[in-house]
Amino acid sequence: MGSFKKRWLIGIDIGGTKIAVSLGTSQGRIVERRVFSSRRGKDPRTSVEEIKTAIRALLKVRRLRPSHVLGIGVGVPGPVHPLRQAVERSPHLPGWRGFPLRTRLSRVFRVPVTIDNDANAAALGEQYFGGGRGISDFLYITVSTGIGSGIVTNGRLVRGEGGSAGEFGHTTIVPGGLLCSCKKKGCLEAYASGTAIAQFVKRALVNGKRSGYFKKLRLNEITGKMVSDAALLNDRIAIEARRKAADYLGIGLANVINLLNPKRIILGGGVMEAVHHFWEPMMKAVRREAWPIAFRDCRIVRSSLGGRSGELGAMSLVLDSLCPHRLR
Amino acid sequence: MGSFKKRWLIGIDIGGTKIAVSLGTSQGRIVERRVFSSRRGKDPRTSVEEIKTAIRALLKVRRLRPSHVLGIGVGVPGPVHPLRQAVERSPHLPGWRGFPLRTRLSRVFRVPVTIDNDANAAALGEQYFGGGRGISDFLYITVSTGIGSGIVTNGRLVRGEGGSAGEFGHTTIVPGGLLCSCKKKGCLEAYASGTAIAQFVKRALVNGKRSGYFKKLRLNEITGKMVSDAALLNDRIAIEARRKAADYLGIGLANVINLLNPKRIILGGGVMEAVHHFWEPMMKAVRREAWPIAFRDCRIVRSSLGGRSGELGAMSLVLDSLCPHRLR
Repeated sequence: MGSFKKRWLIGIDIGGTKIAVSLGTSQGRIVERRVFSSRRGKDPRTSVEEIKTAIRALLKVRRLRPSHVLGIGVGVPGPVHPLRQAVERSPHLPGWRGFPLRTRLSRVFRVPVTIDNDANAAALGEQYFGGGRGISDFLYITVSTGIGSGIVTNGRLVRGEGGSAGEFGHTTIVPGGLLCSCKKKGCLEAYASGTAIAQFVKRALVNGKRSGYFKKLRLNEITGKMVSDAALLNDRIAIEARRKAADYLGIGLANVINLLNPKRIILGGGVMEAVHHFWEPMMKAVRREAWPIAFRDCRIVRSSLGGRSGELGAMSLVLDSLCPHRLR
Repeated sequence: MGSFKKRWLIGIDIGGTKIAVSLGTSQGRIVERRVFSSRRGKDPRTSVEEIKTAIRALLKVRRLRPSHVLGIGVGVPGPVHPLRQAVERSPHLPGWRGFPLRTRLSRVFRVPVTIDNDANAAALGEQYFGGGRGISDFLYITVSTGIGSGIVTNGRLVRGEGGSAGEFGHTTIVPGGLLCSCKKKGCLEAYASGTAIAQFVKRALVNGKRSGYFKKLRLNEITGKMVSDAALLNDRIAIEARRKAADYLGIGLANVINLLNPKRIILGGGVMEAVHHFWEPMMKAVRREAWPIAFRDCRIVRSSLGGRSGELGAMSLVLDSLCPHRLR
């Protein structure tokens, strides 16, 4: 219990539109947070100054010094090299590529700083504080504007050789199929993300299908959230779009079930906030495509961490860096 | 060096048509082997008696006692539950399901017995004695009549929750596509295995395409090996069949590269014995479908273990059971 004073964690969740800096305990209780904008194109040096100010403010409120903190974890929306600890490439944060975030923070606060991809961080968050506790083989999958994943096997996060493991959204599900934002064809993300759901609706409208819900909207205003709302109001195009995306996501889930035989798949992200016209067709596809022997081992659930997923994920990066082996 | 006398390993490679029992060193040198038939439908009790006789013979030739043996490893063509250590289900060995092979052998020889799927065993064989040495993230993929794989992440074999991880051949590559031997539609195995290559040729012939090489053969006599030979003689149908299968395999490889960011993919199995009209279109598909950031980390090679893959794999199961953590 000599480390009682050092039980605090700082998590930094850097997103495409906002940055959240949180102070919490190693048991996953968030006690303070600061949130500010990270609009595209903003200089990372400006953001780092804001992050430092936020950390100082959080510590001050709780009357803590940096030495009371076990470490700082940072989740970013893009691959991070595990050794170089720098953002490799992020369409959401173009200016951050290669930016020495770790050094900038550790030099000031003199605590360990760990940076990783946000989906990896979220998977660790599930492992420490959510549906992955006590489970040695599971996946966290986020279905939002894009599709990402964090994979845990034998109790450890799979980062791969260069830190870019988990690009589940960019596995090919339809050879030669729809163009993805990554410029490849037929990626799962082009069929099952929130963006893809909106695209299905746009294509249907362009092809002359009629919908009361969407007729007042311009095509480029349509979002996955709107399609979800429209489906609740029984809009047929919206229902069909969600069911189609759910079917493809189910095929993708079956593929990772067959490949990795996980005990659990934890689903998060905006699309998973509403299950109507989605969960049932998704599960139907999983049952159709997964091997019964592997499917019987696997429970598919929604994340219980909800909006705290990013912050808890970032915080758990610190715990993982201290002791990556937890099971077996 | 107190365990000098105990450095011997016994590997049993149970295949669909034959069983190989080998005696070797922990450095992977095979010094003796016995091979006998395991024809479909044969009673596993008969096979176990033959295995025991073979082990006794091997030990006798080298003047060894069972106590000189570190353990016995057994590779079987089907999923094996890691805790129950019994065959779960094998189309190649129907009578073996649930058969207590481990007890039968350990009771007689009083050494540890480890049983696993043959593709998992082969991956461990690569980790100890082949292209996986010193690599913490790699896949072994066998492309033969079927397609199987063994996955190593963070230096450890991925068995999954129930031992059925690695069913790469039964990930869906074409939703709603060709019927696979597993009764699912669109599996990679139905597009890229030796069987699939033969099927492409059969379908072309049925559809009226002409081929000098195949015209004297009955459709059900055509094998992947024949297609390989025909392609060498510039048979156009054969070349097309191989290129098509190679393209699909490349898509599958790109998918695991994007998902797991491995440092190496090691290819084995009958189809990989000849690379003509296969390697180049396969690599082209990988380059097209894999994320550059993940692909740059990955080298795709053929197994250097060749015909010894099954035996060395079975032997390495013993080493893995003694110390599963080797890297990081």
